[in-house]
Amino acid sequence: MRAHSGRRPGESGTREAILAAARRQFAELGYDRTSMRQVALEAGVDPTLVSHFHGTKQQLFLEVVELPFQPADVLPALLTGDRDDAGARLAHFAIGVFESEQGRSRVVSLVRAAASEPEAARLVRDLLTREVLTPIAEGIGSDDAAYRASLVMSQIVGLIMARYIVEVEPLASRDASVIADAIAPTLQRYLTGDLT
Amino acid sequence: MRAHSGRRPGESGTREAILAAARRQFAELGYDRTSMRQVALEAGVDPTLVSHFHGTKQQLFLEVVELPFQPADVLPALLTGDRDDAGARLAHFAIGVFESEQGRSRVVSLVRAAASEPEAARLVRDLLTREVLTPIAEGIGSDDAAYRASLVMSQIVGLIMARYIVEVEPLASRDASVIADAIAPTLQRYLTGDLT
Repeated sequence: MRAHSGRRPGESGTREAILAAARRQFAELGYDRTSMRQVALEAGVDPTLVSHFHGTKQQLFLEVVELPFQPADVLPALLTGDRDDAGARLAHFAIGVFESEQGRSRVVSLVRAAASEPEAARLVRDLLTREVLTPIAEGIGSDDAAYRASLVMSQIVGLIMARYIVEVEPLASRDASVIADAIAPTLQRYLTGDLT
Repeated sequence: MRAHSGRRPGESGTREAILAAARRQFAELGYDRTSMRQVALEAGVDPTLVSHFHGTKQQLFLEVVELPFQPADVLPALLTGDRDDAGARLAHFAIGVFESEQGRSRVVSLVRAAASEPEAARLVRDLLTREVLTPIAEGIGSDDAAYRASLVMSQIVGLIMARYIVEVEPLASRDASVIADAIAPTLQRYLTGDLT
């Protein structure tokens, strides 16, 4: 009966099916082994519709790997409360996101893509710089804020690699809040402490 | 004239050419996009010789990505001197390795492979656990040494990702010894400090 209402419901269903297939393939196969054709096949649509609705593979990727939260809304607030606890707040927030299925799938996609080839690394670098590093640096507000933000990112990306991708033990199976407590002082020092 | 001495010189030249091509392709393309056929092509040898001399792609990978130093020789000494400086020694040693062309190419290969697919991640996890985490844990010698070693690895892998692969600025262009100083206290706390 919904068919009577014209092509919009079908179009939105098609878009959703394409995004779901793309999300799954980027996460599982990485950026370079995901193809528009395979995404179309899994979504059950004609391949031309994928580029019709979502543009190039780059554009589809950026649409799919939108971060699991809005960093510009969240990060400044996390960082501008009591500054002595900013590392702990950031550590627990980040790990809370990664422990959710959707959050983990998206950050794992991003890190896999970043590692896979220079083109994808550039996309991820631009995305992270704009959406994560700059909000963190603005939250810190100190002279060397961009450098501090990039150090924070190095520990967080390393945690994603070690715990969720390479699954190094015992880091992979240790309780999430224990790990947040372990990395919190690292993030705190990178945010506000002495770096030399 | 060397041809007179039989097939050994040719065989060793062939092995070397295959390893050089494989090293380059694993580093540049990652584990999953490197094929035995393309390695053979670049080395200028028949594809059957690649598996004849080096076995499966897994075996070729493990042969190529041998670590740029012998961790079992180096790490315990780095960690068992003055324990209060172990983090600084480890940070400067690791970054010294990564700043050399050969060292960087090998660790970038490892991290790319680990991120690319579960099979490669398992290979890298086993390699790192055996060759790096266990020697670090033995150097620490404390109760929770394996967990501490995996935290150390998370920061080091994250640095490789951020500085050498994603090339996040300003971390990517900052002086190497400045970065070693910045992460040294992180490694020190993971090795010997309070984690809760």
